[in-house]
Amino acid sequence: MILLLGASGYIGEAFAKELQARKEDFLSLSRRQVNYTRFDVLLDFLRSKKPEFVINSAGYTGKPNVDACELAKADTLAGNSLLPQTIADACAALNIPWGHVSSGCIFSGAKIIENESTRVEKDMTRPELRALVEKSPEKIRGFTETDTPNFSFRDLPCSFYSGSKALGEEAIAGVGQSYIWRLRIPFDEFDNARNYLSKVQRYAKVYDNVNSISQRYDFARAALDLWERRAPFGIYNVTNQGFVTTRQVIELIKKHLRPAKKFEFWQSDEEFYKVAAKTPRSNCVMDVSKLLATGVKMRPVGEALEDSLKNWKPE
Amino acid sequence: MILLLGASGYIGEAFAKELQARKEDFLSLSRRQVNYTRFDVLLDFLRSKKPEFVINSAGYTGKPNVDACELAKADTLAGNSLLPQTIADACAALNIPWGHVSSGCIFSGAKIIENESTRVEKDMTRPELRALVEKSPEKIRGFTETDTPNFSFRDLPCSFYSGSKALGEEAIAGVGQSYIWRLRIPFDEFDNARNYLSKVQRYAKVYDNVNSISQRYDFARAALDLWERRAPFGIYNVTNQGFVTTRQVIELIKKHLRPAKKFEFWQSDEEFYKVAAKTPRSNCVMDVSKLLATGVKMRPVGEALEDSLKNWKPE
Repeated sequence: MILLLGASGYIGEAFAKELQARKEDFLSLSRRQVNYTRFDVLLDFLRSKKPEFVINSAGYTGKPNVDACELAKADTLAGNSLLPQTIADACAALNIPWGHVSSGCIFSGAKIIENESTRVEKDMTRPELRALVEKSPEKIRGFTETDTPNFSFRDLPCSFYSGSKALGEEAIAGVGQSYIWRLRIPFDEFDNARNYLSKVQRYAKVYDNVNSISQRYDFARAALDLWERRAPFGIYNVTNQGFVTTRQVIELIKKHLRPAKKFEFWQSDEEFYKVAAKTPRSNCVMDVSKLLATGVKMRPVGEALEDSLKNWKPE
Repeated sequence: MILLLGASGYIGEAFAKELQARKEDFLSLSRRQVNYTRFDVLLDFLRSKKPEFVINSAGYTGKPNVDACELAKADTLAGNSLLPQTIADACAALNIPWGHVSSGCIFSGAKIIENESTRVEKDMTRPELRALVEKSPEKIRGFTETDTPNFSFRDLPCSFYSGSKALGEEAIAGVGQSYIWRLRIPFDEFDNARNYLSKVQRYAKVYDNVNSISQRYDFARAALDLWERRAPFGIYNVTNQGFVTTRQVIELIKKHLRPAKKFEFWQSDEEFYKVAAKTPRSNCVMDVSKLLATGVKMRPVGEALEDSLKNWKPE
């Protein structure tokens, strides 16, 4: 039996649906049923149910966005740092393998290849870099699983949310047997406040940046595939292949959904952070070579976006 | 056997000395010998050594003061929030009782009794309150173990250090069997960079405030007494009885040590925070009724201060 924690959340839903589709024997557990944030409660539960695998998709994301985490620091740390450690400890005590939904947002920027040397650019909004993204995308590389997070409490400034997620990875690193699945900006065809494609359509103004992103069901599928294949435990970036600019996403939205709305962009980073955002945002490119090398499939980001927009289901 | 974690620290030293004095069978463990911050390493160690009690005096305090924690957020959280949870989890898995050195710095201010009603004052530097402290000390009450911390990530602003300590208490609350011993501003007769009486003598200017404080060996003794008496597990404020102003401490230093130095004070909170401090400081009064009700003895703060200064050992 597979135990799914956080099944009512946006990513937990995708896991539940995918597990159902696979006819897996699984149990969704909510905090209201069993307070799995308490170590001894979780340990007793695991002892009695003996799951073969545990999935943690619970976490604290902040509503409507990560700015909310700056005001809810204790809940943010409890959900994203302490809870993963509690689960890691309980699973390690009973030798149960498990997987944790982490986030690529512990990185900022991308790696740029020039003259055979690689440099890291943390801020991809400068005009010359934006030109590079559009004209020479082959020079852009994503962060790999061996790169050290550069948007964390160890590499300030960062958002409190990103700091808490990076600390969560540290808290479970090397404890027992675990997958760390790094998600980035989930989306799919179902209009929803958590869906990136819905958010982009609803912003008063759009912050143009470059990102790797994760189709929600592609993410859950790939995460489960890693376990089914018994891929080595450890960290995996789990995004669609490649990256996309917000401007490119909007072009696709216009093409497929023909919205009446005219999209406006923030003129600069300065304007965005002055008017709309309280805490720095992570925008980053992730490398999924490690995931693909295990044989797990991931669609290119363009294909996943086209598919979601072709099948768009308004709320 | 009693296992002592963090024995090389300022408070760990006091526990080690007190355990020796009591001829207790105890083992001091350093992170270099066994990395007890990793759950499975600690669990294996506890399984093989089977201590009857574990003491955690390890933590991250920031050097030379808590401002350093603002720049070392990951280490601060790892040392003060994640580590206590790791120990709580490992001890709970094996039913081992333990004690954790927490801090009263998760509170700010004091409770003031006026006309039979009690109000909380978070900032005790206002002139009318300072007058109350000197003239009507009987109207000042400390925070008890049932009061909710008011200087934490749930009650901003707070220092990152205080936030991490409050979160550490949350992380272990209700898990297994533990004492939470709240220390405040340690001091004793040995001149040392961590000793409050040394600090006060070395500050360029002194920040006058009101605090409950803990003589270091009184603290270790009381903490061990709680365990020896098998007092109920839970939170205990462990400071000397009463409170003292920095000005009163300086009068005692002058009386006993006759320093050549002339003491200067910051004129106001504003000046102190503008010039000397980056993050808000906790200054608070703690109530030790719960500790005393168990039968454990604690000297009044004046007696402990006089004793330390009479026996002062310059570095």
